[in-house]
Amino acid sequence: MVFVLSGGASEGAKRMSAAEQTPGDDTPWGEVTPEAARRLLVAAVDAFAERGYHATTTRDIAGRAGMSPAALYIHYKTKEELLHRISAIGHDKALEILQTAADGPGTAAERLTAAVRSFVRWHAERHTTARVVQYELDALGAEHRTEIVALRRRSDAAVRRIINEGVASGEFDVPDIPGTTLAVLSLCIDVARWFDSAGRRTPDEVGALYADLVLRMVGAGPK
Amino acid sequence: MVFVLSGGASEGAKRMSAAEQTPGDDTPWGEVTPEAARRLLVAAVDAFAERGYHATTTRDIAGRAGMSPAALYIHYKTKEELLHRISAIGHDKALEILQTAADGPGTAAERLTAAVRSFVRWHAERHTTARVVQYELDALGAEHRTEIVALRRRSDAAVRRIINEGVASGEFDVPDIPGTTLAVLSLCIDVARWFDSAGRRTPDEVGALYADLVLRMVGAGPK
Repeated sequence: MVFVLSGGASEGAKRMSAAEQTPGDDTPWGEVTPEAARRLLVAAVDAFAERGYHATTTRDIAGRAGMSPAALYIHYKTKEELLHRISAIGHDKALEILQTAADGPGTAAERLTAAVRSFVRWHAERHTTARVVQYELDALGAEHRTEIVALRRRSDAAVRRIINEGVASGEFDVPDIPGTTLAVLSLCIDVARWFDSAGRRTPDEVGALYADLVLRMVGAGPK
Repeated sequence: MVFVLSGGASEGAKRMSAAEQTPGDDTPWGEVTPEAARRLLVAAVDAFAERGYHATTTRDIAGRAGMSPAALYIHYKTKEELLHRISAIGHDKALEILQTAADGPGTAAERLTAAVRSFVRWHAERHTTARVVQYELDALGAEHRTEIVALRRRSDAAVRRIINEGVASGEFDVPDIPGTTLAVLSLCIDVARWFDSAGRRTPDEVGALYADLVLRMVGAGPK
Protein backbone atom coordinates (compact mmCIF):
# COMPACT_ATOMS: atom_id res chain seq x y z
CA MET A 1 0.00 0.00 0.00
CA VAL A 2 1.58 3.23 -1.11
CA PHE A 3 0.48 6.72 -0.25
CA VAL A 4 0.28 8.84 -3.36
CA LEU A 5 -1.39 12.04 -4.33
CA SER A 6 0.24 11.88 -7.70
CA GLY A 7 -1.06 8.74 -9.32
CA GLY A 8 1.70 6.25 -8.62
CA ALA A 9 4.96 7.71 -9.95
CA SER A 10 7.39 9.10 -7.41
CA GLU A 11 7.57 12.86 -7.26
CA GLY A 12 10.44 14.29 -9.22
CA ALA A 13 10.27 11.49 -11.71
CA LYS A 14 8.63 12.80 -14.85
CA ARG A 15 5.10 13.39 -13.73
CA MET A 16 1.85 13.10 -15.53
CA SER A 17 -0.37 16.13 -15.26
CA ALA A 18 -3.28 15.65 -12.92
CA ALA A 19 -5.60 15.40 -15.91
CA GLU A 20 -3.60 12.54 -17.45
CA GLN A 21 -3.77 10.33 -14.42
CA THR A 22 -5.97 7.31 -14.48
CA PRO A 23 -8.59 6.91 -11.81
CA GLY A 24 -8.95 3.83 -9.64
CA ASP A 25 -5.29 3.24 -8.84
CA ASP A 26 -4.59 0.88 -5.97
CA THR A 27 -4.25 3.48 -3.24
CA PRO A 28 -6.69 3.95 -0.39
CA TRP A 29 -6.91 7.46 -1.64
CA GLY A 30 -8.03 6.32 -5.07
CA GLU A 31 -10.64 4.09 -3.52
CA VAL A 32 -12.32 6.57 -1.25
CA THR A 33 -12.14 9.80 -3.20
CA PRO A 34 -13.90 10.72 -6.40
CA GLU A 35 -11.44 11.21 -9.23
CA ALA A 36 -12.16 14.93 -9.58
CA ALA A 37 -11.51 15.54 -5.88
CA ARG A 38 -8.26 13.60 -6.12
CA ARG A 39 -7.12 15.61 -9.15
CA LEU A 40 -7.79 18.78 -7.20
CA LEU A 41 -5.66 17.54 -4.31
CA VAL A 42 -2.77 16.71 -6.65
CA ALA A 43 -3.07 20.17 -8.21
CA ALA A 44 -3.19 21.82 -4.78
CA VAL A 45 -0.04 20.00 -3.62
CA ASP A 46 1.81 21.17 -6.72
CA ALA A 47 0.61 24.76 -6.37
CA PHE A 48 1.30 25.01 -2.63
CA ALA A 49 4.77 23.48 -3.05
CA GLU A 50 5.67 25.76 -5.93
CA ARG A 51 4.26 29.09 -4.76
CA GLY A 52 3.31 28.60 -1.11
CA TYR A 53 -0.17 28.34 0.39
CA HIS A 54 -0.81 32.07 0.66
CA ALA A 55 0.21 32.84 -2.93
CA THR A 56 -2.10 30.15 -4.32
CA THR A 57 -5.75 30.81 -5.16
CA THR A 58 -8.51 28.25 -5.60
CA ARG A 59 -8.65 29.51 -9.20
CA ASP A 60 -4.98 28.48 -9.67
CA ILE A 61 -5.75 25.03 -8.28
CA ALA A 62 -8.84 24.53 -10.43
CA GLY A 63 -6.85 25.63 -13.51
CA ARG A 64 -4.05 23.15 -12.82
CA ALA A 65 -6.64 20.40 -12.47
CA GLY A 66 -8.29 21.43 -15.75
CA MET A 67 -11.47 22.40 -13.96
CA SER A 68 -13.51 25.53 -13.34
CA PRO A 69 -13.53 27.30 -9.96
CA ALA A 70 -17.21 26.32 -9.67
CA ALA A 71 -16.32 22.65 -10.17
CA LEU A 72 -13.68 22.92 -7.43
CA TYR A 73 -16.27 24.37 -5.07
CA ILE A 74 -18.40 21.21 -5.37
CA HIS A 75 -15.58 19.27 -3.68
CA TYR A 76 -13.87 21.82 -1.44
CA LYS A 77 -15.50 24.93 0.01
CA THR A 78 -12.22 26.68 0.81
CA LYS A 79 -8.51 26.58 0.08
CA GLU A 80 -7.95 25.73 3.73
CA GLU A 81 -10.13 22.64 3.33
CA LEU A 82 -7.78 21.43 0.58
CA LEU A 83 -4.73 22.05 2.77
CA HIS A 84 -6.38 20.27 5.67
CA ARG A 85 -7.16 17.24 3.52
CA ILE A 86 -3.56 17.07 2.25
CA SER A 87 -2.19 17.51 5.76
CA ALA A 88 -4.54 14.88 7.24
CA ILE A 89 -3.64 12.31 4.57
CA GLY A 90 0.09 12.98 5.03
CA HIS A 91 -0.05 12.80 8.80
CA ASP A 92 -2.23 9.67 8.75
CA LYS A 93 0.34 8.05 6.51
CA ALA A 94 3.24 9.11 8.75
CA LEU A 95 1.44 7.70 11.78
CA GLU A 96 0.68 4.46 9.98
CA ILE A 97 4.34 4.04 8.96
CA LEU A 98 5.63 4.63 12.47
CA GLN A 99 2.98 2.59 14.29
CA THR A 100 3.43 -0.33 11.91
CA ALA A 101 7.15 -0.31 12.68
CA ALA A 102 6.59 0.07 16.43
CA ASP A 103 4.08 -2.82 16.46
CA GLY A 104 6.19 -5.04 14.22
CA PRO A 105 8.26 -8.09 15.15
CA GLY A 106 11.87 -8.04 16.21
CA THR A 107 14.11 -6.25 18.66
CA ALA A 108 13.86 -2.54 19.40
CA ALA A 109 16.85 -1.99 17.09
CA GLU A 110 15.12 -3.84 14.26
CA ARG A 111 11.88 -1.92 14.75
CA LEU A 112 13.68 1.44 14.96
CA THR A 113 15.53 0.53 11.75
CA ALA A 114 12.22 -0.29 10.05
CA ALA A 115 10.65 2.98 11.26
CA VAL A 116 13.51 5.15 10.04
CA ARG A 117 13.90 3.40 6.67
CA SER A 118 10.22 3.65 5.90
CA PHE A 119 9.76 7.20 7.21
CA VAL A 120 12.81 8.45 5.28
CA ARG A 121 11.69 6.69 2.12
CA TRP A 122 8.32 8.43 2.27
CA HIS A 123 9.88 11.87 2.80
CA ALA A 124 12.28 11.27 -0.11
CA GLU A 125 9.84 9.75 -2.60
CA ARG A 126 7.01 12.17 -1.75
CA HIS A 127 9.18 15.20 -1.01
CA THR A 128 6.84 17.67 -2.71
CA THR A 129 3.83 16.46 -0.74
CA ALA A 130 5.90 16.16 2.42
CA ARG A 131 7.07 19.77 2.20
CA VAL A 132 3.47 20.99 2.07
CA VAL A 133 2.53 18.63 4.92
CA GLN A 134 5.47 19.73 7.08
CA TYR A 135 5.80 23.43 6.27
CA GLU A 136 2.25 24.76 6.01
CA LEU A 137 0.95 23.84 9.47
CA ASP A 138 0.59 27.50 10.42
CA ALA A 139 -1.87 28.04 7.57
CA LEU A 140 -4.38 25.54 9.00
CA GLY A 141 -7.42 26.85 10.84
CA ALA A 142 -7.37 26.48 14.63
CA GLU A 143 -9.58 23.38 14.78
CA HIS A 144 -7.76 21.59 11.98
CA ARG A 145 -4.44 22.49 13.49
CA THR A 146 -5.46 20.93 16.80
CA GLU A 147 -6.45 17.74 14.99
CA ILE A 148 -3.12 17.57 13.11
CA VAL A 149 -1.06 18.31 16.21
CA ALA A 150 -2.78 15.34 17.88
CA LEU A 151 -1.71 13.10 14.97
CA ARG A 152 1.85 14.40 15.29
CA ARG A 153 1.87 13.60 19.02
CA ARG A 154 0.82 10.03 18.23
CA SER A 155 3.64 9.70 15.66
CA ASP A 156 6.08 10.98 18.23
CA ALA A 157 4.68 8.49 20.78
CA ALA A 158 5.23 5.55 18.40
CA VAL A 159 8.93 6.34 18.04
CA ARG A 160 9.31 7.12 21.74
CA ARG A 161 7.78 3.76 22.55
CA ILE A 162 10.42 1.90 20.50
CA ILE A 163 13.20 3.88 22.17
CA ASN A 164 11.72 3.31 25.63
CA GLU A 165 11.53 -0.41 25.00
CA GLY A 166 15.12 -0.48 23.76
CA VAL A 167 16.30 1.31 26.88
CA ALA A 168 14.27 -1.01 29.11
CA SER A 169 15.73 -4.11 27.44
CA GLY A 170 19.27 -2.72 27.64
CA GLU A 171 19.67 -2.53 23.85
CA PHE A 172 19.80 1.28 23.84
CA ASP A 173 21.56 3.86 25.97
CA VAL A 174 19.60 7.13 25.76
CA PRO A 175 19.94 9.82 28.45
CA ASP A 176 17.22 12.09 26.96
CA ILE A 177 14.43 10.00 25.45
CA PRO A 178 12.02 12.82 24.46
CA GLY A 179 14.87 14.89 22.97
CA THR A 180 16.29 11.93 21.07
CA THR A 181 12.82 11.03 19.74
CA LEU A 182 12.43 14.60 18.48
CA ALA A 183 15.86 14.50 16.84
CA VAL A 184 15.20 11.18 15.09
CA LEU A 185 11.92 12.42 13.61
CA SER A 186 13.46 15.78 12.71
CA LEU A 187 16.36 14.13 10.89
CA CYS A 188 13.92 12.08 8.79
CA ILE A 189 11.52 14.96 8.10
CA ASP A 190 14.28 17.24 6.82
CA VAL A 191 14.94 14.75 4.01
CA ALA A 192 11.93 16.35 2.28
CA ARG A 193 13.79 19.68 2.18
CA TRP A 194 17.06 18.52 0.63
CA PHE A 195 16.20 15.34 -1.27
CA ASP A 196 16.77 15.64 -4.98
CA SER A 197 15.38 12.94 -7.25
CA ALA A 198 18.23 13.66 -9.67
CA GLY A 199 20.83 13.38 -6.89
CA ARG A 200 23.28 10.60 -6.12
CA ARG A 201 21.33 8.77 -3.45
CA THR A 202 18.11 6.81 -3.87
CA PRO A 203 15.41 6.97 -1.18
CA ASP A 204 16.41 3.46 -0.08
CA GLU A 205 20.07 4.40 0.25
CA VAL A 206 19.22 7.44 2.36
CA GLY A 207 16.95 5.25 4.48
CA ALA A 208 19.73 2.70 5.07
CA LEU A 209 22.29 5.39 5.96
CA TYR A 210 19.88 7.12 8.31
CA ALA A 211 18.87 3.89 10.04
CA ASP A 212 22.56 3.29 10.77
CA LEU A 213 23.03 6.84 12.09
CA VAL A 214 19.91 6.59 14.27
CA LEU A 215 21.08 3.30 15.81
CA ARG A 216 24.27 5.12 16.72
CA MET A 217 22.25 7.99 18.22
CA VAL A 218 20.52 5.55 20.59
CA GLY A 219 23.77 3.84 21.51
CA ALA A 220 23.11 0.68 19.50
CA GLY A 221 25.66 1.31 16.76
CA PRO A 222 29.00 -0.44 16.29
CA LYS A 223 30.96 -0.69 19.55
CA MET B 1 29.45 39.12 17.30
CA VAL B 2 25.85 38.18 16.75
CA PHE B 3 23.99 37.99 13.47
CA VAL B 4 20.72 39.83 13.74
CA LEU B 5 18.23 41.20 11.36
CA SER B 6 15.95 42.12 14.23
CA GLY B 7 17.85 44.58 16.35
CA GLY B 8 19.34 42.34 19.02
CA ALA B 9 16.48 40.48 20.68
CA SER B 10 16.05 36.82 19.78
CA GLU B 11 13.20 36.06 17.47
CA GLY B 12 10.11 34.92 19.28
CA ALA B 13 10.95 37.06 22.28
CA LYS B 14 8.75 40.15 22.27
CA ARG B 15 10.07 42.06 19.31
CA MET B 16 10.33 45.72 18.64
CA SER B 17 8.78 46.81 15.39
CA ALA B 18 11.33 47.64 12.74
CA ALA B 19 10.59 51.34 13.22
CA GLU B 20 11.36 51.18 16.96
CA GLN B 21 14.80 49.71 16.55
CA THR B 22 17.79 51.86 17.21
CA PRO B 23 20.39 52.22 14.51
CA GLY B 24 24.06 51.55 15.05
CA ASP B 25 23.80 48.34 17.04
CA ASP B 26 26.96 46.30 17.35
CA THR B 27 26.37 43.94 14.45
CA PRO B 28 28.33 43.95 11.21
CA TRP B 29 24.99 44.39 9.60
CA GLY B 30 24.30 47.59 11.59
CA GLU B 31 27.70 48.93 10.63
CA VAL B 32 27.53 48.41 6.91
CA THR B 33 23.91 49.03 6.07
CA PRO B 34 21.95 52.25 6.26
CA GLU B 35 19.24 52.04 8.87
CA ALA B 36 16.42 52.27 6.32
CA ALA B 37 17.80 49.37 4.29
CA ARG B 38 18.18 47.33 7.44
CA ARG B 39 14.58 48.05 8.49
CA LEU B 40 13.44 46.86 5.08
CA LEU B 41 15.34 43.60 5.47
CA VAL B 42 13.77 42.98 8.88
CA ALA B 43 10.34 43.68 7.42
CA ALA B 44 11.03 41.38 4.45
CA VAL B 45 12.09 38.50 6.73
CA ASP B 46 8.89 38.85 8.73
CA ALA B 47 6.70 39.03 5.62
CA PHE B 48 8.39 36.11 3.82
CA ALA B 49 8.26 33.96 6.96
CA GLU B 50 4.61 34.72 7.60
CA ARG B 51 3.16 34.58 4.10
CA GLY B 52 5.89 33.09 1.90
CA TYR B 53 7.99 34.87 -0.72
CA HIS B 54 5.47 34.64 -3.56
CA ALA B 55 2.56 35.99 -1.50
CA THR B 56 4.56 39.03 -0.38
CA THR B 57 4.69 42.27 -2.37
CA THR B 58 7.26 45.05 -2.09
CA ARG B 59 4.33 47.20 -1.01
CA ASP B 60 3.72 44.83 1.96
CA ILE B 61 7.38 45.06 2.92
CA ALA B 62 7.53 48.84 2.67
CA GLY B 63 4.35 49.10 4.75
CA ARG B 64 5.76 46.87 7.50
CA ALA B 65 8.87 49.06 7.58
CA GLY B 66 6.76 52.22 7.82
CA MET B 67 8.01 53.38 4.43
CA SER B 68 6.58 54.11 0.99
CA PRO B 69 7.13 51.75 -1.97
CA ALA B 70 9.19 54.54 -3.56
CA ALA B 71 11.46 54.70 -0.51
CA LEU B 72 11.96 50.93 -0.68
CA TYR B 73 12.97 51.23 -4.32
CA ILE B 74 15.90 53.50 -3.38
CA HIS B 75 17.46 50.56 -1.52
CA TYR B 76 16.21 47.49 -3.37
CA LYS B 77 15.13 47.35 -6.98
CA THR B 78 13.22 44.10 -6.67
CA LYS B 79 11.74 41.73 -4.14
CA GLU B 80 14.27 39.14 -5.29
CA GLU B 81 17.10 41.51 -4.36
CA LEU B 82 15.75 41.60 -0.80
CA LEU B 83 15.57 37.81 -0.66
CA HIS B 84 19.07 37.52 -2.05
CA ARG B 85 20.44 39.92 0.59
CA ILE B 86 18.72 37.96 3.39
CA SER B 87 19.95 34.66 1.97
CA ALA B 88 23.51 35.92 1.51
CA ILE B 89 23.71 37.28 5.07
CA GLY B 90 22.31 34.06 6.50
CA HIS B 91 24.59 31.82 4.48
CA ASP B 92 27.64 33.98 5.25
CA LYS B 93 26.83 33.65 8.93
CA ALA B 94 26.38 29.87 8.66
CA LEU B 95 29.71 29.57 6.88
CA GLU B 96 31.44 31.76 9.47
CA ILE B 97 30.04 29.64 12.33
CA LEU B 98 31.17 26.37 10.78
CA GLN B 99 34.58 27.56 9.58
CA THR B 100 35.34 29.13 12.96
CA ALA B 101 34.59 25.80 14.60
CA ALA B 102 36.59 23.84 12.02
CA ASP B 103 39.60 26.15 12.40
CA GLY B 104 39.40 26.28 16.19
CA PRO B 105 41.60 24.56 18.75
CA GLY B 106 41.03 21.11 20.16
CA THR B 107 40.34 17.61 18.99
CA ALA B 108 38.00 16.79 16.13
CA ALA B 109 35.35 15.85 18.71
CA GLU B 110 35.72 19.22 20.43
CA ARG B 111 35.52 21.10 17.15
CA LEU B 112 32.50 19.11 15.95
CA THR B 113 30.82 19.83 19.29
CA ALA B 114 31.52 23.55 18.86
CA ALA B 115 30.19 23.52 15.29
CA VAL B 116 26.95 21.77 16.21
CA ARG B 117 26.28 23.84 19.34
CA SER B 118 26.81 27.10 17.53
CA PHE B 119 24.96 26.10 14.34
CA VAL B 120 21.97 24.79 16.33
CA ARG B 121 21.90 27.89 18.52
CA TRP B 122 21.70 30.11 15.45
CA HIS B 123 18.87 28.08 13.89
CA ALA B 124 16.97 28.15 17.20
CA GLU B 125 17.50 31.80 18.13
CA ARG B 126 16.99 33.09 14.58
CA HIS B 127 14.42 30.52 13.49
CA THR B 128 12.28 33.01 11.57
CA THR B 129 15.24 34.26 9.55
CA ALA B 130 16.61 30.74 9.18
CA ARG B 131 13.35 29.45 7.71
CA VAL B 132 13.46 32.11 5.00
CA VAL B 133 17.15 31.40 4.39
CA GLN B 134 16.60 27.63 4.18
CA TYR B 135 13.20 27.32 2.50
CA GLU B 136 13.14 30.03 -0.17
CA LEU B 137 16.19 29.01 -2.21
CA ASP B 138 14.03 28.15 -5.23
CA ALA B 139 12.77 31.73 -5.40
CA LEU B 140 16.27 33.13 -6.02
CA GLY B 141 17.25 34.12 -9.54
CA ALA B 142 19.64 31.78 -11.34
CA GLU B 143 22.78 33.83 -10.72
CA HIS B 144 22.03 34.44 -7.06
CA ARG B 145 21.14 30.82 -6.58
CA THR B 146 24.51 29.76 -7.98
CA GLU B 147 26.27 32.11 -5.56
CA ILE B 148 24.30 30.78 -2.57
CA VAL B 149 24.83 27.15 -3.56
CA ALA B 150 28.57 27.86 -3.57
CA LEU B 151 28.34 29.19 0.01
CA ARG B 152 26.42 26.07 1.01
CA ARG B 153 29.12 23.85 -0.48
CA ARG B 154 31.74 25.67 1.58
CA SER B 155 29.69 25.16 4.77
CA ASP B 156 29.38 21.50 3.92
CA ALA B 157 33.16 21.34 3.33
CA ALA B 158 33.92 22.84 6.76
CA VAL B 159 31.95 20.10 8.54
CA ARG B 160 33.31 17.40 6.26
CA ARG B 161 36.85 18.56 7.08
CA ILE B 162 36.28 18.08 10.82
CA ILE B 163 34.84 14.62 10.24
CA ASN B 164 37.67 13.69 7.88
CA GLU B 165 40.25 14.76 10.45
CA GLY B 166 38.48 12.81 13.19
CA VAL B 167 38.50 9.69 11.03
CA ALA B 168 42.17 10.20 10.14
CA SER B 169 43.14 10.58 13.81
CA GLY B 170 41.10 7.54 14.80
CA GLU B 171 38.70 9.56 16.97
CA PHE B 172 35.74 8.90 14.67
CA ASP B 173 34.40 5.84 12.90
CA VAL B 174 32.37 6.99 9.86
CA PRO B 175 31.74 4.66 6.92
CA ASP B 176 29.99 7.33 4.79
CA ILE B 177 31.60 10.73 5.34
CA PRO B 178 29.61 12.78 2.76
CA GLY B 179 26.32 11.21 3.88
CA THR B 180 27.09 11.76 7.56
CA THR B 181 28.10 15.37 6.89
CA LEU B 182 24.79 15.94 5.13
CA ALA B 183 22.87 14.34 8.01
CA VAL B 184 24.65 16.44 10.65
CA LEU B 185 23.88 19.69 8.83
CA SER B 186 20.32 18.57 8.09
CA LEU B 187 19.65 17.73 11.74
CA CYS B 188 20.82 21.21 12.79
CA ILE B 189 18.95 23.05 10.02
CA ASP B 190 15.64 21.40 10.84
CA VAL B 191 15.76 23.03 14.28
CA ALA B 192 14.51 26.18 12.52
CA ARG B 193 11.32 24.31 11.56
CA TRP B 194 10.33 22.95 14.96
CA PHE B 195 11.97 25.27 17.47
CA ASP B 196 9.47 27.12 19.64
CA SER B 197 10.71 30.01 21.77
CA ALA B 198 7.92 29.22 24.23
CA GLY B 199 8.88 25.53 24.36
CA ARG B 200 10.64 23.57 27.07
CA ARG B 201 14.17 23.66 25.68
CA THR B 202 16.46 26.67 25.31
CA PRO B 203 18.68 27.04 22.22
CA ASP B 204 21.69 26.11 24.38
CA GLU B 205 20.00 22.97 25.67
CA VAL B 206 19.11 21.85 22.15
CA GLY B 207 22.70 22.59 21.09
CA ALA B 208 24.11 20.47 23.93
CA LEU B 209 21.75 17.55 23.20
CA TYR B 210 22.50 17.68 19.48
CA ALA B 211 26.27 17.85 20.01
CA ASP B 212 25.98 14.64 22.07
CA LEU B 213 23.86 12.94 19.38
CA VAL B 214 26.24 14.00 16.61
CA LEU B 215 29.27 12.63 18.50
CA ARG B 216 27.39 9.33 18.66
CA MET B 217 26.66 9.53 14.90
CA VAL B 218 30.41 9.75 14.18
CA GLY B 219 31.23 6.92 16.56
CA ALA B 220 32.73 9.15 19.27
CA GLY B 221 29.91 8.83 21.80
CA PRO B 222 29.91 6.78 25.00
CA LYS B 223 31.26 3.27 24.47
